[in-house]
Amino acid sequence: VDDPTETLGVVAPDRRSWVEVPEGSDFPLQNLPFGIGRRVGEDPRLLVAIGDHALDLAAVAAAGWLDDLDGAARIVHADTLAPLLERDLATWRRWRARIADLLDVTDGRVADAGLAERVLLDLADVELLVPVRPGDVVDFYSSEAHATNVGRMFRPDEEPLLENWRHLPVGYHGRASTVVVSGTPVVRPSGQRRPEDPAATPPVGASERLDIELEVGFVTGGPSNPMGRAVDIADAHEHVFGFVLVDDWSARDIQAWEYRPLGPFLGKSFATSISPWVVTLDALAPYRVPGPTQDPAPPAYLRTSAHWGLDLDLEIALAPHGGHERVISRTGFRDMYWTPAQQLAHVTVNGTTIRPGDLYASGTVSGEDPGSHGSLLELSWNGTRPLDLGDGVIRTFLEDGDTVTLRGAGDRPGLPRIGLGEVAGTVLPAEA
Amino acid sequence: VDDPTETLGVVAPDRRSWVEVPEGSDFPLQNLPFGIGRRVGEDPRLLVAIGDHALDLAAVAAAGWLDDLDGAARIVHADTLAPLLERDLATWRRWRARIADLLDVTDGRVADAGLAERVLLDLADVELLVPVRPGDVVDFYSSEAHATNVGRMFRPDEEPLLENWRHLPVGYHGRASTVVVSGTPVVRPSGQRRPEDPAATPPVGASERLDIELEVGFVTGGPSNPMGRAVDIADAHEHVFGFVLVDDWSARDIQAWEYRPLGPFLGKSFATSISPWVVTLDALAPYRVPGPTQDPAPPAYLRTSAHWGLDLDLEIALAPHGGHERVISRTGFRDMYWTPAQQLAHVTVNGTTIRPGDLYASGTVSGEDPGSHGSLLELSWNGTRPLDLGDGVIRTFLEDGDTVTLRGAGDRPGLPRIGLGEVAGTVLPAEA
Repeated sequence: VDDPTETLGVVAPDRRSWVEVPEGSDFPLQNLPFGIGRRVGEDPRLLVAIGDHALDLAAVAAAGWLDDLDGAARIVHADTLAPLLERDLATWRRWRARIADLLDVTDGRVADAGLAERVLLDLADVELLVPVRPGDVVDFYSSEAHATNVGRMFRPDEEPLLENWRHLPVGYHGRASTVVVSGTPVVRPSGQRRPEDPAATPPVGASERLDIELEVGFVTGGPSNPMGRAVDIADAHEHVFGFVLVDDWSARDIQAWEYRPLGPFLGKSFATSISPWVVTLDALAPYRVPGPTQDPAPPAYLRTSAHWGLDLDLEIALAPHGGHERVISRTGFRDMYWTPAQQLAHVTVNGTTIRPGDLYASGTVSGEDPGSHGSLLELSWNGTRPLDLGDGVIRTFLEDGDTVTLRGAGDRPGLPRIGLGEVAGTVLPAEA
Repeated sequence: VDDPTETLGVVAPDRRSWVEVPEGSDFPLQNLPFGIGRRVGEDPRLLVAIGDHALDLAAVAAAGWLDDLDGAARIVHADTLAPLLERDLATWRRWRARIADLLDVTDGRVADAGLAERVLLDLADVELLVPVRPGDVVDFYSSEAHATNVGRMFRPDEEPLLENWRHLPVGYHGRASTVVVSGTPVVRPSGQRRPEDPAATPPVGASERLDIELEVGFVTGGPSNPMGRAVDIADAHEHVFGFVLVDDWSARDIQAWEYRPLGPFLGKSFATSISPWVVTLDALAPYRVPGPTQDPAPPAYLRTSAHWGLDLDLEIALAPHGGHERVISRTGFRDMYWTPAQQLAHVTVNGTTIRPGDLYASGTVSGEDPGSHGSLLELSWNGTRPLDLGDGVIRTFLEDGDTVTLRGAGDRPGLPRIGLGEVAGTVLPAEA
């Protein structure tokens, strides 16, 4: 088996915390996702979510409970997860184990020291910051249903999947400067669109086809591979630190005009939102399942016996300005054709260096049923089938004031719920 | 005029330095490019090239000659140009003026203090480091001859230029983690290639069509535009800090198989080499010329009255392992269809944030004549016209051990030569 340590970092399912964790919370003791945040007037610091609270690791370090962990001062007083990500899997497991112990219902250290109020922050009082500032952003295209839908819409006379799609995880580089944390408003982008008359001047203005893409991304950690040296897929678990939800905002009209022959550019670069909590691969161990059956069999560098499918439920919710939220799609991550391990191995097969904090997004996650698509492009079939959301709210693409929220979690009978939290964003009108 | 200050940062052409500048040097007193480097055992520091030497700004600062320049200690003791780039055009001009004064033949400060040996390093003793670690890398496609050649080769039945090409500067995001400085060896990348029989398994292995692309890139500086707010093309000079030569190494066989529909990815991501000296826009002022006539006229956001053509001569040289160097192409940058100012305005028209140290590469610079193409793809017409380099050296694409060197300079009668220096790289065999 490529990853014999798959369950080594699991917090046993019967363990409970002295912090109250509401029923259905994304963040029980078995999750312990890492984030960066601050209360008003404080410096950013490393946080771990537990129920409706966050453990302040800077305060935990001040109490001396991390003194034996190498480099803890730098890791807890940081404005991104980078100092933690630069370490290795063994270190991440030591941190998780220590945090699980401190939060365990049988552990009296925090209470005995009278520090509960100092180390445990109410999430309502915390500003969560972007947890990573990626050195590189890659966006894949790994959902078969999504790639098929796009092919059907835009190349109706061809096979919907292009000839390379089943042989390698198609992807491209995205923009790093506009990766923002959940809650950041998104200004409607402007740009050129295709003129209706090919001889006419292309119109320039606010996008009329603003969309979202529901994606799950992984954040890398561990030592960088030297340039020129591939990462073996059997070692992928040492480089995949954890997962976030990704909203890959997309301006379909800008994209459609610009993308030949070099791919998406300004139709995507204006904003990519991520959820604030990075959920570790270890926390998701109970939801790791075999990857999909692949036919044809992929080449050797994309084969692994480890479990790289992730059995997560995902949803998209839309709330018009001043209106209530509607779930407009429910889908699953389990059936993604290409797995994170394959994506990582593919990115590095040519010797490309990965660095701690890189973001690798899955591509739009779509199921085959109309209610399980991961974009408005598909849900409205390129604008031809408007969605009736009730109360007179009709959508093909996004309107100003719309708030989109993506959510995801592993939640199966007999297993602790392990949530990714959510990523939300509200559309602001285009700049004049 | 959009940039009335265009010549404000020029070092007058009749000024000379007390440092000997050999005839034909890229780095007279009028150039003063910035770089980062170190001598053995020393920390990286800010350097400025002058002739065959480098002025050590850390040593200059230690002598007190930068005391009145805000933040000088951080700027000179840095391992990239970032602290300088984060400032603004006025600051860059103050630094250039100060450095020009210190190096001027009429200035006795360095000699009087007996510090010439301390502040002036022989370039032969200096390890030059990568001057920027870009937060984002964009590669454009702005040479009409190059885009036309590629279209003729790969879409022989269509118009060579796609319908969007004359309306906007086509581009895509590249890889930041593998931007390396001149001299860094490049390991031949491996990857999937298209199978000859569409039903067969794609071969995986070392690229058989390794190529270079001759490009000129600009490095950004100055305050970042807020997300959602475009940079006006009239302000481009405040954001274009300077220029480097870019070798956009390309594996044509990997690229050809992967690139539909999302663009180049692993065919490019394994390495991008840049020259170590960033030549400022001010240094190049004598070589700024009107941009090309564009038909159709571009939209308003891509129009400027400032001079954004750059009249530079470029060349590609190839030396086989153990053999002498041959110049295989000579071309010019002056005729590029899309200018740096247009590229910058286009990147931000959708509200994308630019950050100090971003790298925006021009795309392959090709002329129309066969000897003026910027890639082996074009020079060998996709491998169909092998180049005879003499002494039995024949090339279609690169062989292991080949060293490619790109050079570029402005050099016109009556004007000081302003060189970009060179970017070189040697191909190492693929990893086993």
